Amino acid sequence: MKRMFSKRAREAKASEVRELLKLTDNNDIIAFGGGLPAQEAFPVEEMIEVCKDILVAHGTKAMQYATTEGNNEIRGLMQEIMKEKGITAEIENILVTSGSQQGLDLTAKVFIEEGDKVICEKPTYMAAINAFKPFSPQFLEVEMEEDGITLEDLEALLQQNPDAKFIYTIPDFQNPTGRSMSLGKRKKLVHIANKYDILIIEDNPYSELRFSGETSPPIKSFDTEGRVIYLSTFSKIVCPGFRIGWVCGEKEIINKYGLLKQGTDLHTNIFSQLQILYFFKTYDIKQRINKVREIYKKKRDVMIETIEKEFPKEVEFTRPMGGMFVWVTLPEDMEAKKLLEKAITQGVAFVPGEAFYASSEVKNTLRLNFSGLEEDKIQIGIRRLAEVIKNEM
Amino acid sequence: MKRMFSKRAREAKASEVRELLKLTDNNDIIAFGGGLPAQEAFPVEEMIEVCKDILVAHGTKAMQYATTEGNNEIRGLMQEIMKEKGITAEIENILVTSGSQQGLDLTAKVFIEEGDKVICEKPTYMAAINAFKPFSPQFLEVEMEEDGITLEDLEALLQQNPDAKFIYTIPDFQNPTGRSMSLGKRKKLVHIANKYDILIIEDNPYSELRFSGETSPPIKSFDTEGRVIYLSTFSKIVCPGFRIGWVCGEKEIINKYGLLKQGTDLHTNIFSQLQILYFFKTYDIKQRINKVREIYKKKRDVMIETIEKEFPKEVEFTRPMGGMFVWVTLPEDMEAKKLLEKAITQGVAFVPGEAFYASSEVKNTLRLNFSGLEEDKIQIGIRRLAEVIKNEM
Repeated sequence: MKRMFSKRAREAKASEVRELLKLTDNNDIIAFGGGLPAQEAFPVEEMIEVCKDILVAHGTKAMQYATTEGNNEIRGLMQEIMKEKGITAEIENILVTSGSQQGLDLTAKVFIEEGDKVICEKPTYMAAINAFKPFSPQFLEVEMEEDGITLEDLEALLQQNPDAKFIYTIPDFQNPTGRSMSLGKRKKLVHIANKYDILIIEDNPYSELRFSGETSPPIKSFDTEGRVIYLSTFSKIVCPGFRIGWVCGEKEIINKYGLLKQGTDLHTNIFSQLQILYFFKTYDIKQRINKVREIYKKKRDVMIETIEKEFPKEVEFTRPMGGMFVWVTLPEDMEAKKLLEKAITQGVAFVPGEAFYASSEVKNTLRLNFSGLEEDKIQIGIRRLAEVIKNEM
Repeated sequence: MKRMFSKRAREAKASEVRELLKLTDNNDIIAFGGGLPAQEAFPVEEMIEVCKDILVAHGTKAMQYATTEGNNEIRGLMQEIMKEKGITAEIENILVTSGSQQGLDLTAKVFIEEGDKVICEKPTYMAAINAFKPFSPQFLEVEMEEDGITLEDLEALLQQNPDAKFIYTIPDFQNPTGRSMSLGKRKKLVHIANKYDILIIEDNPYSELRFSGETSPPIKSFDTEGRVIYLSTFSKIVCPGFRIGWVCGEKEIINKYGLLKQGTDLHTNIFSQLQILYFFKTYDIKQRINKVREIYKKKRDVMIETIEKEFPKEVEFTRPMGGMFVWVTLPEDMEAKKLLEKAITQGVAFVPGEAFYASSEVKNTLRLNFSGLEEDKIQIGIRRLAEVIKNEM
């Protein structure tokens, strides 16, 4: 049967690391490997009411086929959310997607032809690499600083590659590093995109999860030529299981996303679109977001404090002001994948950083998730990890 | 911005017909154009209970990220459904998809490279064409008879094209024709696939909707070499709005579907997977399917009786024993698209057949949907359409 598979299918392989992390599912290993939002913040009770309200108000319409573009009321909600961030959009600028991940798949479908150059941060979100890869782009990486992508390197790269299609960036609490792009860089990035006639894909799932420092408006809010395509989701402020996200961009672009979405899944689950909509209609979302931030802040604080106390000085790590992840850089001669094997035997797990590099090989980094674990577990887990690292050094 | 679009995005165009049919949304036009299941059969009341039960039993787990492969219990349910049809599968042979449409998108991702030959029925399901097209296959069409695909033509085609990747077929109450493949042809088709070393994609959304004649087992039940990939959905037996479907095939193949699904949408909405599961656990599904069949039979009967009475003899049409569609062939010199323009002015609409041909141009066919309309409307609509046809002849 193998000869039947497409090149993209032949190349799609289960990652070694994923297989390794599966071992951590069913025992007492403390797993920093996942990327789960804190589920203690999910509105379970409220959702029982919401489901009932939807079915009483919409009846069979909540269960029928729906439009590819998405429910107009929820598009209106997305419009409001973006307006508060300084992005002006009409409903026709918005497409509801089956999670933000589908926004990435459609981005690939709309823009990438085999060999097309795609610029991303080094490191970048693993699942974005996985979404783009089946369409065979050539990945170009740009180094990051504490305040986001290194603009000088980006310009140099664009001078060498004037035909690059887009820059993919996660400006707030980037996955995997937890870093955020400074206000100044956001503005300059738009400037550079205009100068070199390139698109920006702004993936912004975490922006509401800020628990310290000052908020910067999205890159899209500085867009002067319709070059920024903005992706977001309700996964982190309500819950991820419903798979409701959206894409915002120029009408001509969103129209193409919609046409290609049609063949991809016809439309996004209408019941869950209404679940999100009614949840926003009925409950105080600001209050909820504050609750989520408080939970996340505590977890981050525990993780950072324990790292500071326990990790050897040679190990570097980020201090995110929001989001879900801390990024750790081990001494150069250490390999995170080898470390993981030992860590598992000591009852702790993480994701080695290598999967987050689109084209280069970097072996001494790793990602720690703090949102998905209880505070006492974070403490114990970090202590275990510190021991493993010390033993390796 | 246009220069940025991929070839597949440049080629994706809103269909003229779809635009025309949009006119029929908000007024008293009787629209046979859609493909909506009868919503009077959707279990709204039951779903209120189901949602509550899920949230009480699973709590936050019903809202959290879930596995790409799908919930194991619902995979077990899919396994049982297929077992009753004669398909033996293990859980690892099954992938939950975001509607059957995603099964088609993933089929394209797993198998189609640019220029690959894909065989389909003439006519075939429009949205399958739309799912495959972005991956640039070469479509080869095979004529249909009343009892399904013409096997002699298929063999001739395979002799000329030994490198074809797969045959795409809808054996039960095909969309758009309403035709079903005979038992004999199902067996022979597997035989031919073995002989010519080709895959079969069996798309089977309608099989439960049989209201007369005898059931034939799926093609997959005759599969001897793991060449049949079986797609199905809960859209027609529960409701389409939840977007829950599945793919069944050899483990090696399902593994590739899963790997590519990961980049496409991470996983299918877990809440809706549980909605389907709990609905099956709590309610008598056989009774429900019988209710659905009864509703559909009445509608089909009204449509066929009215057509027989009102349409000119020169117009041919299918008499489906299940499903949702009747296929009409006009005299050769008539153009369905032109007819539609006139029909709309007379308060009735349908889908011209041309969108259902993957590569050929046929202008004198059209599809009528009976499941989505009340019986009295079906009668009035068919009378209106008969008048329009008579006036054209």
